[in-house]
Amino acid sequence: MTGDTRTPVTILGLGAMGTALAQAYLDAGHPTTVWNRTAAKAAPLVAAGAHHAENVEDAVAASPLVIACLLSYETTLAALGPAAGAVSGRALVTLNSGTPSGAREMAAWATGHGARFLDGAIKNVPTAVGLPDTVLYYSGDRSVFDEHETTLRVMGGDTSYLGADADLAALYEMAVGGTLLPALLGFFQGAALVTRRGLPATSLVRYTAKWLEMIISVLPVIAEEIDTGDYTRLPSSVGLFHEGIAYDHEIGVEGDVDIAWHLPMHDLLRRAVEAGHRDHSIAALIEVLRKPHETA
Amino acid sequence: MTGDTRTPVTILGLGAMGTALAQAYLDAGHPTTVWNRTAAKAAPLVAAGAHHAENVEDAVAASPLVIACLLSYETTLAALGPAAGAVSGRALVTLNSGTPSGAREMAAWATGHGARFLDGAIKNVPTAVGLPDTVLYYSGDRSVFDEHETTLRVMGGDTSYLGADADLAALYEMAVGGTLLPALLGFFQGAALVTRRGLPATSLVRYTAKWLEMIISVLPVIAEEIDTGDYTRLPSSVGLFHEGIAYDHEIGVEGDVDIAWHLPMHDLLRRAVEAGHRDHSIAALIEVLRKPHETA
Ligand SMILES: NC(=O)c1ccc[n+]([C@@H]2O[C@H](COP(=O)([O-])OP(=O)(O)OC[C@H]3O[C@@H](n4cnc5c(N)ncnc54)[C@H](OP(=O)(O)O)[C@@H]3O)[C@@H](O)[C@H]2O)c1
Ligand SMILES: NC(=O)c1ccc[n+]([C@@H]2O[C@H](COP(=O)([O-])OP(=O)(O)OC[C@H]3O[C@@H](n4cnc5c(N)ncnc54)[C@H](OP(=O)(O)O)[C@@H]3O)[C@@H](O)[C@H]2O)c1
Repeated sequence: MTGDTRTPVTILGLGAMGTALAQAYLDAGHPTTVWNRTAAKAAPLVAAGAHHAENVEDAVAASPLVIACLLSYETTLAALGPAAGAVSGRALVTLNSGTPSGAREMAAWATGHGARFLDGAIKNVPTAVGLPDTVLYYSGDRSVFDEHETTLRVMGGDTSYLGADADLAALYEMAVGGTLLPALLGFFQGAALVTRRGLPATSLVRYTAKWLEMIISVLPVIAEEIDTGDYTRLPSSVGLFHEGIAYDHEIGVEGDVDIAWHLPMHDLLRRAVEAGHRDHSIAALIEVLRKPHETA
Repeated sequence: MTGDTRTPVTILGLGAMGTALAQAYLDAGHPTTVWNRTAAKAAPLVAAGAHHAENVEDAVAASPLVIACLLSYETTLAALGPAAGAVSGRALVTLNSGTPSGAREMAAWATGHGARFLDGAIKNVPTAVGLPDTVLYYSGDRSVFDEHETTLRVMGGDTSYLGADADLAALYEMAVGGTLLPALLGFFQGAALVTRRGLPATSLVRYTAKWLEMIISVLPVIAEEIDTGDYTRLPSSVGLFHEGIAYDHEIGVEGDVDIAWHLPMHDLLRRAVEAGHRDHSIAALIEVLRKPHETA
C-alpha cells in the first residue's frame, strides 16, 4: 500500500496534542494537511511532509476526514466559524476535552452545517499518541467511525465507539475523571498521617499502589452489581464502611488533618443504612447517590 | 534443615485469617501450637500436625514467638488476660486490624507485662497467606523483627518493618485505607452517569482501571513533592482542578446525582488557591488539609 492510497487527513490545532496527532499521520503515510491559528507552529510538520493550509476553510476542504484538537469546544466553534460553508459532507472529529453540554453544542453546530460529526477523547499524553495501548473513545455518527476506524486507530490502538449520542465521549471522560481528586485526597491525607510521624510520604507509595490495584481488581464485580441491582456479591458491606466512620475521625486526631471532606460521605453511608442497605455491598451507595438531596 | 530447627510458633485465634497463618507455619515445617476461644476450630489443624493448647497460658508458654490474630485489640486484650503472667520474655505479635490508639493500648499492656511487642498488619485475604507478593508490615520492637524476620516471612514475602513506634503499622493501614471509599464513590458516580444514559456500568471498568493505573504512576512524584515541599514537578496544578469545580456541578445535572460529597473538596481547592498554591501541583492540597478548620 503506498501513502497515496491512505485517507487524507486534516489536523486543526497544533498545540502539544494536535502536533503529536499530525506527526502520527505523517509517520503512517497519510497525506496530512495542518492548520493552526498561530501559523508558525506548522513549520516542523511541513518540514516533515505536511501540507500547510493558509486558512481554516482550505484546511477543511483539503481532506474528507478533519480532526480538530483545539483547547475547548468554545475555541473550536470560534475557529471553525469561517469554515461553516466548507464542513458540509466532511467527517468532522473533535478531540478536545470538555463537558457533555459542550459536546452537544458542538454537534448541533456541525450537523447543522451538514458535517458528519464524531466527538472523541484521547486519554493520554502527547508522547503516547500512536501506541497500541493508547485509549481513545468516540461517540456520534457511527458511519464516520466505521468508515475511518483504521485511520482513527493511527492515533492509538485502544480505540472504541461508545454510542450514537455525540456527548457520550465527554460523558465518559467526566465519569472516569471524577475519581481523580477524591483518590488523590485520600493519598494526601495518608501522607499527612505518616509525615506527621516523621516518616516520608514516599514510604506510603508502594502500599497505596497495591491498594489501588486491589480496587481495580474489584471494579468488574462492582459494575455487575450496579448493572443488575443485586448488591450481594462483594464481601464489603455498607455496614462495614458505616462502622469505619469512627476511623475517619481518628484520622483527624492522629494526623492533625481536616477531615471535613469525609463528612458528606458519612451522610451517604448513613442514608444507605437507613434505606436498608446495611448488609448490601458498598456498591449499593449508588442508590443514594442517584437520589438528589438538599445540601447543607 | 529439619522441622525441629525451625522456631516454634503459637497462633492465637483460628478465624479465617488465623487458620491460614497456622497452616502456613505447618506447611513450612514449624512446630506450631494453636489456641482458639472456640476450641473446635483447631481440629483440622491438629489433624495436620498442630499442637492444641487447652488454654491461652499454655499456648503462650509453648513458643518463643506468639502471633495473635483475633478480631480486634479489644478482644485480644480480653483473650490474653489469663496469660498476663506468661507473656514475659515472649515475642508477641498482633496481626488484627485496628486503630493506632488501639495499638498503643495493646503495646502498653504487652510491654507492661514484660513481653517484647510487635504489631503488624496483613494486607490481603487468607488465601494469599504465604505468597511471595503478600504484604505485611510491622512496627514496634525491632529486636523481635530482626530475630524472627525469616519466620515472619512465612506469612508473606513482601514483609517490612516501619519503625519503633508500635502504632505505626495501624497508622499505615489507616493512611492507605483512607483512599478506598472516596475512590469507590468516584466510580459509583461515574456509573450513575453512564447507566442513566442506558449504558452499562461494566462499560466504564476498563477506562477507570486505566485511570487508576495512571494515578498509581504519578504517586512517586507526588510523594516526593510532599516530602520536599517543592510542588513544581507534577504538571497538574491546583488551578486546573479549581477550574474543574464547574465540571462537578455538571456531573450533578448530567447524572442526576447528588454531588454534595464534592463540596468540601471544592472548599479545599479554594483555600489552596487563596493560600497561593494556584500554580503549584495538586499535591500542595496537603498544606490546607494539614491545617484544621472549622467544619460547617
Ligand atoms: N496535552 C495533553 O496531555 C492532553 C491530553 C489529553 C487531552 N488533551 C486535550 O487536547 C486539547 C488540546 O490540548 P493541547 O495540549 O494540544 O493544548 P495546547 O498545547 O494548549 O494547544 C491549544 C491549541 O488550541 C488552539 N487555540 C486555543 N484557543 C484558540 C482560539 N480561540 N482559536 C483558535 N485556536 C485556538 C491553540 O492555537 P495557538 O497555537 O494559536 O494558541 C493550540 O493549537 C485540549 O482540550 C486538551 O484538554 C490534551
Ligand atoms: N479475613 C480477611 O480477609 C482479613 C484480611 C486482613 C486482615 N484481617 C484481620 O484479621 C483479624 C482476624 O480476621 P478473621 O478474618 O480471621 O476474623 P474471623 O474469621 O471473624 O475470626 C475472628 C477470631 O477472633 C476470635 N475472637 C473474637 N472475639 C473474641 C473474644 N472476645 N475472645 C477471644 N477470641 C475472640 C474468634 O474466636 P471464635 O472462633 O471463638 O469466635 C476468631 O478466632 C481481624 O482483625 C481482621 O480485620 C482479616
